[in-house]
Amino acid sequence: MHISDQGIYYGDYLQLDKILSAQDLESEKAGRPAHDEMLFIVTHQAYELWFRQIIHEIESILSLFEQPVIPDNSPDFYTIFHRLSRVKTILQLLVKQIDVMETMTPLDFLDFRNLLRPASGFQSVQFKIVEAALGLKQPDRHGELYYISQLRPQDAAVIQRIEGRRSLLELTNEWLERMPFFREEAFWGQYAPIFPPADGAPHPFWSDYYQLYEQSLQANERGNLRQFERFFLADDDKQGKLSFEARRNALFIMLYRDFPLLHLPFQYLSLLLDMDELMSTWRFRHINMVNRIIGLRTGTGGSTGKDYLKAALDRHYIFNEIAGLTTFLIERSNLPVLPVDVQRRLGFAAG
Amino acid sequence: MHISDQGIYYGDYLQLDKILSAQDLESEKAGRPAHDEMLFIVTHQAYELWFRQIIHEIESILSLFEQPVIPDNSPDFYTIFHRLSRVKTILQLLVKQIDVMETMTPLDFLDFRNLLRPASGFQSVQFKIVEAALGLKQPDRHGELYYISQLRPQDAAVIQRIEGRRSLLELTNEWLERMPFFREEAFWGQYAPIFPPADGAPHPFWSDYYQLYEQSLQANERGNLRQFERFFLADDDKQGKLSFEARRNALFIMLYRDFPLLHLPFQYLSLLLDMDELMSTWRFRHINMVNRIIGLRTGTGGSTGKDYLKAALDRHYIFNEIAGLTTFLIERSNLPVLPVDVQRRLGFAAG
Amino acid sequence: MHISDQGIYYGDYLQLDKILSAQDLESEKAGRPAHDEMLFIVTHQAYELWFRQIIHEIESILSLFEQPVIPDNSPDFYTIFHRLSRVKTILQLLVKQIDVMETMTPLDFLDFRNLLRPASGFQSVQFKIVEAALGLKQPDRHGELYYISQLRPQDAAVIQRIEGRRSLLELTNEWLERMPFFREEAFWGQYAPIFPPADGAPHPFWSDYYQLYEQSLQANERGNLRQFERFFLADDDKQGKLSFEARRNALFIMLYRDFPLLHLPFQYLSLLLDMDELMSTWRFRHINMVNRIIGLRTGTGGSTGKDYLKAALDRHYIFNEIAGLTTFLIERSNLPVLPVDVQRRLGFAAG
Amino acid sequence: MHISDQGIYYGDYLQLDKILSAQDLESEKAGRPAHDEMLFIVTHQAYELWFRQIIHEIESILSLFEQPVIPDNSPDFYTIFHRLSRVKTILQLLVKQIDVMETMTPLDFLDFRNLLRPASGFQSVQFKIVEAALGLKQPDRHGELYYISQLRPQDAAVIQRIEGRRSLLELTNEWLERMPFFREEAFWGQYAPIFPPADGAPHPFWSDYYQLYEQSLQANERGNLRQFERFFLADDDKQGKLSFEARRNALFIMLYRDFPLLHLPFQYLSLLLDMDELMSTWRFRHINMVNRIIGLRTGTGGSTGKDYLKAALDRHYIFNEIAGLTTFLIERSNLPVLPVDVQRRLGFAAG
Repeated sequence: MHISDQGIYYGDYLQLDKILSAQDLESEKAGRPAHDEMLFIVTHQAYELWFRQIIHEIESILSLFEQPVIPDNSPDFYTIFHRLSRVKTILQLLVKQIDVMETMTPLDFLDFRNLLRPASGFQSVQFKIVEAALGLKQPDRHGELYYISQLRPQDAAVIQRIEGRRSLLELTNEWLERMPFFREEAFWGQYAPIFPPADGAPHPFWSDYYQLYEQSLQANERGNLRQFERFFLADDDKQGKLSFEARRNALFIMLYRDFPLLHLPFQYLSLLLDMDELMSTWRFRHINMVNRIIGLRTGTGGSTGKDYLKAALDRHYIFNEIAGLTTFLIERSNLPVLPVDVQRRLGFAAG
Repeated sequence: MHISDQGIYYGDYLQLDKILSAQDLESEKAGRPAHDEMLFIVTHQAYELWFRQIIHEIESILSLFEQPVIPDNSPDFYTIFHRLSRVKTILQLLVKQIDVMETMTPLDFLDFRNLLRPASGFQSVQFKIVEAALGLKQPDRHGELYYISQLRPQDAAVIQRIEGRRSLLELTNEWLERMPFFREEAFWGQYAPIFPPADGAPHPFWSDYYQLYEQSLQANERGNLRQFERFFLADDDKQGKLSFEARRNALFIMLYRDFPLLHLPFQYLSLLLDMDELMSTWRFRHINMVNRIIGLRTGTGGSTGKDYLKAALDRHYIFNEIAGLTTFLIERSNLPVLPVDVQRRLGFAAG
Repeated sequence: MHISDQGIYYGDYLQLDKILSAQDLESEKAGRPAHDEMLFIVTHQAYELWFRQIIHEIESILSLFEQPVIPDNSPDFYTIFHRLSRVKTILQLLVKQIDVMETMTPLDFLDFRNLLRPASGFQSVQFKIVEAALGLKQPDRHGELYYISQLRPQDAAVIQRIEGRRSLLELTNEWLERMPFFREEAFWGQYAPIFPPADGAPHPFWSDYYQLYEQSLQANERGNLRQFERFFLADDDKQGKLSFEARRNALFIMLYRDFPLLHLPFQYLSLLLDMDELMSTWRFRHINMVNRIIGLRTGTGGSTGKDYLKAALDRHYIFNEIAGLTTFLIERSNLPVLPVDVQRRLGFAAG
Repeated sequence: MHISDQGIYYGDYLQLDKILSAQDLESEKAGRPAHDEMLFIVTHQAYELWFRQIIHEIESILSLFEQPVIPDNSPDFYTIFHRLSRVKTILQLLVKQIDVMETMTPLDFLDFRNLLRPASGFQSVQFKIVEAALGLKQPDRHGELYYISQLRPQDAAVIQRIEGRRSLLELTNEWLERMPFFREEAFWGQYAPIFPPADGAPHPFWSDYYQLYEQSLQANERGNLRQFERFFLADDDKQGKLSFEARRNALFIMLYRDFPLLHLPFQYLSLLLDMDELMSTWRFRHINMVNRIIGLRTGTGGSTGKDYLKAALDRHYIFNEIAGLTTFLIERSNLPVLPVDVQRRLGFAAG
């Protein structure tokens, strides 16, 4: 018996009959085959395959985060971290993939471009799902409702369903809020203040940190102080993406990341910033590519593609508030010493 | 006799005594050694080494272009092309090099950041030389005169000297102008017009092309027509970086690139766009990195680094007018047929 | 009417119904869903999509090369060059894509690995088509007939059909042979020999070049001279992949690449070497990855994957004889001057 | 006062006077300036700068490892991990940097190649320091003593001094040995065996694991069992790079990496494999490049460069025994359950 008659066969397993029969060129149907249309199709299909994978990872991450609690000693947070690292690696590939699309010259694209109207990359449901699952809400989208008019109702509905669900940003916010660092009085009872506490300061740690931060500022940075107050003292900042408590805990993680319990959380927060960076780099290179291939012509979807992309580039950062916390760091050597009990709780049982 | 006593020795040849002794940490001098300062120094030195190489290549390219004429059959234009390709490869490396810098966390940078004031990457004379040699003039720089105040007079003078010399952009413009395509009456005598020439059209080719372009436009693209007139018919566009003649010849190259004489010129124009893309991608990733490492703090040079970089990102495209020509392409199958004699002159002698 | 009801819709155009429904996890069917199996499937599908594109490009290149003659002034050779450049860019992406697969840890792979037996990447028909279309013949394959036993008869037949057709290597050989450089007496009548011709030398140019090459050798390189004789003088080297005439013309192109007619041919030959480099780098990284993920276990296909891959790595270079020509270059400043008429024929008509 | 007169100035800080004056072309001294020699010098200098940085990182890692103990709750191991991650990122850049060198064509290299004899990349002291610091000992080097004859005595001495010191491999081995997993009786008292213990099995865990591993093998993998016995049961394997105890603990880490205490150790072991992969990929691409640029000519150092590089490629893997442990993994779902007390000790205090 032939080896390939038994068990699994590579081509069947990968369903290559579907994958490799999904390239029908409009230019062939129109009787004017354009060689490069194949590249156009295959590149977009490769993007969609990777979006599928990204969604698979993010779905699993959201499920793990949706638990009421993630026990410190469960493998769940490590799994979240590992899978988000993979998304990062895929995004790096997707940025690189633009190199391939750029081998198509403007003149070669013109050979079939008009045949595709009004289809547009804008109609990638999966890409919008990724954005929504990460935390981009409709009102924050550039062109807000515009995209819905471009999509079939059932496709728009899928995205809106995801927008209605808790996103990675929101679940990260909740996870940050759950951290007990500043909630428990007992936790901080032994904290030895550096400075006499300021009036009305909610917590001696923050009172100290405020003064240390003030000392660290250059003359032309005094304005940062107002922002510090709003962000970390006032507890009345309602507009942000991060809640008051989440913001404080995120800064705490960044400052005390050397304690074992905070290693992975710190790496996780860094990954979120990597994601924003990579998605924005992808958008940026995409703009350059579109500009180069179609110039100031309208996109196949009818929009002036470049302007849309540019506005999206500026507005679609999702984790920018986390990135912004960097503004409020001080030198490690000046950090307040944590109470011994807190230190212990941030370490390993065996330590 | 020992092999290393005769002839050239690797370490001597590379002057590693200089290269490897050029890392003095300010944090060590201050008695508080910061491990990551070495990374900061080495990364910037690696950038400067590569800038040195880029300048070496561009210098040689400018010299070749400065000849009154580049004979078609000399190897010079091929050499220009080859060396600019190398610059592109180096720029790709420099974009990637940001990955290394990003391994420095904000907290680690804080350990030595204040010791560096007011030094700033802004003071990289070589980077400004690269920009100037490519074609960025002082009035087009964001912050125009600001940078001069940051530099030692002798350094500012070096850059201004380069700014006063013909740049790659200007020399490319002159090279494009020298092309005889639309100057010689004899050249075009045999051109068979497709349409009755429009009144006052400077040349039947352009009259035809205008009408073909008009036919190619979507309803919402009619505005492009006015721009076409200004760019290719009116001969009164004084503001641009490209002259009227250069612009027409550049478009001609893009359209008829399949003729042997235009292969390399087309690849060369594409390289210029690659350069702009890579430099802007570098700037973009640089912004993200700065934003991530120092947040909204001021840079070591005292500027709010991010804002400067962002304005520079938008304004420092050098070859954008060449990229913009894509707007005016039409489908290859609709291109006017060139006179046989022109075709012959665009080919090989042996062909 | 809704915009998406008219004309082409992105998801339909890309047949996303097929593409995104082609991921059925064996581990799910077995009732033990393994999260990472999705990555395994999607990554391989992405590879297959790109192989499809590579085959599309190579097919078109082979067709162009199959013409009895490629007129110097037709755009065909430029098209060949451009499309092969694209294949290079895709191969660079495929090397990078291994980064994504490497995010799967050995333990995660074990969760579903046994379910896939005996399927194996070895069964990728498209990859073998690429190899065969480039020039790898069955007898040169490591494990020669082995791979046929792993494939369904109809799949093996497809590959064998391609192996029976003229490959890129053979067509390149024919294209090199067609070049008239050393065939036409008239062409070389005016050649001014540097040295008195050696006895029996087939052509004064080669007689000169032989002596110049001899002068260029270091003492420990004298053995190269025998090889030079066999390769360029004897005309009896039957075993090689390149014919005697092709080999001489290829070296000529490398030496005189500065003449316009030889610009693209030189770039083309360099691209062939890039292809070999990239495919071998891919194989090399693949070996490392397999070694890392499954260690010394047998692959799902039953082979000791690593050994096969390693043997293939060494043997599957296709254009190695072209790379080897580098051995026989001499310094540009010592090159024999070509007759004026030859120079003219290597240039542009307008030059 | 001018801003640049006070405080630190970018160019001074980076000692650009040294860095940018360290390029003296031999071809210029010889009166025949070769344009590409600058590229040759700058590329090698950039490599040396990065080697400097890599050594800076590895030095600091070795120092941390040289402590008699690394307390679980100190930041030291995290610091080690972070710095080794950076080395990985730098190595990725160095692989990419070969792209730049490959822009030099063979003919361009010939213009100055003979002037460099007998200097050779082989004489890079820093590269050999990196290899030695990671764990490559002289007897394991291809060509063992050969390299010493190529170096000045004082340079050879530097490398030998590093070879005499404990390397990253040895310190990793010691760190692995220090782990208490299988030493403490108390630790394992509560272990509930799955199978009746085999005769003479040193520990019920390993007796179980042996049987589980046996069950996991395919028919043609039975040979692995002998190796398992030698590696994990016999305690008489003297030849390896890892001691018996270290090997067992490393496998334990790979298997139970989901426990918090093992997260970083697992990531650290993976990083070691990344290092080997990247260094071997660099060597591999280097071989291809050398082969391409000089063919079968001897290198400037007199060796047949390619053969040396190829032997080094196969032999210079440093952490291959850690990679090989993958051979002995079993499915996660079959893993023996750890005693509750062990589980607790592998977790956080707060968990």
